[in-house]
Amino acid sequence: MHDAIRINDERFWSTIERSGEIGVGRPGGLARLALSDADREMRDLFVRWCREAGCEVTIDRLGSIFARREGTDASLPPVVMGSHLDTQVNGGKYDGIVGVLAGLEVIRALNDHDVCTRRPIELVSWTNEEGARFSPPMVASGAFAGVYEVDWVLGRLDDDDKRFGDELARIGYAGSAPVGGRPLDAYFELHIEQGPILDGEGIDVGVVVRGYAVRGFLVEVRGETSHTGPTPMDKRRNALVGAAMLAVAVNDVGWRYHPTGGKATAAWLLIKPNQPGILSDWAQLICDVRHDDPAVADRMTAEVLEAVSRCAERSQCEIAVIDRWTFGNERFDPECVGRIRAAAQHLGVRALDIASQAGHDAYHISKIAPMAMIFTPCRDGITHNHREQAEMGHTVPGVNVLLHAVRARAMR
Amino acid sequence: MHDAIRINDERFWSTIERSGEIGVGRPGGLARLALSDADREMRDLFVRWCREAGCEVTIDRLGSIFARREGTDASLPPVVMGSHLDTQVNGGKYDGIVGVLAGLEVIRALNDHDVCTRRPIELVSWTNEEGARFSPPMVASGAFAGVYEVDWVLGRLDDDDKRFGDELARIGYAGSAPVGGRPLDAYFELHIEQGPILDGEGIDVGVVVRGYAVRGFLVEVRGETSHTGPTPMDKRRNALVGAAMLAVAVNDVGWRYHPTGGKATAAWLLIKPNQPGILSDWAQLICDVRHDDPAVADRMTAEVLEAVSRCAERSQCEIAVIDRWTFGNERFDPECVGRIRAAAQHLGVRALDIASQAGHDAYHISKIAPMAMIFTPCRDGITHNHREQAEMGHTVPGVNVLLHAVRARAMR
Repeated sequence: MHDAIRINDERFWSTIERSGEIGVGRPGGLARLALSDADREMRDLFVRWCREAGCEVTIDRLGSIFARREGTDASLPPVVMGSHLDTQVNGGKYDGIVGVLAGLEVIRALNDHDVCTRRPIELVSWTNEEGARFSPPMVASGAFAGVYEVDWVLGRLDDDDKRFGDELARIGYAGSAPVGGRPLDAYFELHIEQGPILDGEGIDVGVVVRGYAVRGFLVEVRGETSHTGPTPMDKRRNALVGAAMLAVAVNDVGWRYHPTGGKATAAWLLIKPNQPGILSDWAQLICDVRHDDPAVADRMTAEVLEAVSRCAERSQCEIAVIDRWTFGNERFDPECVGRIRAAAQHLGVRALDIASQAGHDAYHISKIAPMAMIFTPCRDGITHNHREQAEMGHTVPGVNVLLHAVRARAMR
Repeated sequence: MHDAIRINDERFWSTIERSGEIGVGRPGGLARLALSDADREMRDLFVRWCREAGCEVTIDRLGSIFARREGTDASLPPVVMGSHLDTQVNGGKYDGIVGVLAGLEVIRALNDHDVCTRRPIELVSWTNEEGARFSPPMVASGAFAGVYEVDWVLGRLDDDDKRFGDELARIGYAGSAPVGGRPLDAYFELHIEQGPILDGEGIDVGVVVRGYAVRGFLVEVRGETSHTGPTPMDKRRNALVGAAMLAVAVNDVGWRYHPTGGKATAAWLLIKPNQPGILSDWAQLICDVRHDDPAVADRMTAEVLEAVSRCAERSQCEIAVIDRWTFGNERFDPECVGRIRAAAQHLGVRALDIASQAGHDAYHISKIAPMAMIFTPCRDGITHNHREQAEMGHTVPGVNVLLHAVRARAMR
């Protein structure tokens, strides 16, 4: 019974296209930063869609939106689908968005076919996944999982010193529901792959089985101001140069591990006073290394730390790692992963086991609930760019997999 | 007659110390940015001192302050002394300031001894020499010499988008005198060396005979935004990395020419969007090379341009030099330089011929008047830093040289 149901492809894709009109950035892309006017416009539309689909909508204190489709036993924890509707400053129309609107389409499809599940089904759109406006990223799902304090999140500042909490209130999404603190039966997130593997292999469904091991570093460089002109080279302690040396060295680490899929990124660099007439005495650099094999990621880490010492000596600056973080060792729940694999088999869809290379809200949620992810292809793996591209025909199979995996889990 | 006059050492030094109380930055230093409240306070004090010394004070449209001590023939062009009273954001108490207050002390000493000169003597404090707030540096002397249009200068913006002209009016120094357009008989600038040579040699007076050849570059790097995580190394076009490679390469050029006193500086770097989750697609870098020998500076330039190509290839970014400038080939007038040398000899002060490695207002003025400079020592050559240090005993000899050179020229 209901084994033959499918989503409505055109209806699903029309929501992606409608979303793509809100917060337009460079041609073809979106710049829908968290808690901006465009974010509000998208949220208003999403809430309306969810209510029209018969869901009860709740907003938590961090603005994450929960749409609930009741099951036959309201006392059971819900099966949750989710992702995010915010984008990078030069983002695409699919990253995060496809996952949220896939969840909406799953609910609509269940409605179409009058499917009653035993457990409630919830769909969530997490606030500020990207971290493009308020750092860190994935902050609302992190708070939901108990990783961050709610008040700390509300106090985050953007580059114009606007407060997360104030901006959330300004757009009308400072909800009253508590953040987390309740059991979830399971969490499923569909997301574009953000890598080239599925597109290259011509396979539409990735069954995410693990995350790349990611090791992140916040590095501080301390030099000394001095005149850019007469100061002899051997008396210079230019923090700009110290940070640049490290950025290049980190990039080199990435290239050394490129043959086995490793990456290393110098992502963000701030320099002070950073003026033409004076050598800078302070810089901070955010960088990370990523590898499918945690042991290799540890070796890459060691090479970055060696580079820190080498660049400090070469630039005559003090260079220190002042913060470190790690992710990618989150647990993908075998039962939930099995449901995704079973749904793909049931639907006759080719699926590929794959590792996730980016961070996702699902990583945080894995701490409090069984979690699994489905990847869908994006052209050439391009993402966080206005040229990010996904196609309906290659996305729909993954959404149908989500539909059947969630339905099966909710029937349990 | 008057061959034996000397400045009043303590009076001179007390003005330096008083100036050091206005716009205090890090301990020991100043952060007296152009057209700030501190700049106003210093200007008010300077104008009062000049009037107390019997001078007529005129402010030009760019806020440069001219104090005139009349000669016996008011129709003759003046002999001018000058420098600047603004500082870097982490500046010292001597850079520029010593030159202006040396000029004030010269006028006071002439007054003390009732010296009447044939030509008028003027003392000027140029607005915004440092360029630490409004770019470019030396903008008021440049306009005086016809290098920049006055209205263009008035329209310069600081980092907070405040307009030069508005800030000048705000502090009450938007004068009515035309900028330039009148003949000067000669221009003498006393300045701390901003290098370690005089301090190292134990010589108190540098006779500046030429400028280091400086070749400056504004370089633009164009890459592509992409996810910092999954994007394979060979698909990355991270503008941050392209710019960092070039910054390191420029620094390496400096080291290669370090044995012959060459310098190369990566001074200023801006990156966009410069956020942790996204590779940056744009960067700009300001860098320069300096050498005493113009032919060597040209070779260093060629190496920077080779590095631009090499870094572009290595980073897969487009890198282009979008602006270039040059200075240091300004003419130091033999007659004026001879007067400085003669004054030193007359005073029995050891003097060393020296090249200037930094830019100075005097460079611009050389285009419209015979120009010469006197250097005084600063400890270890440290400058553009709160640890910049000059001592009365090693500065006074240069001021007495200025006194006698200017007096002799004004008697002509």
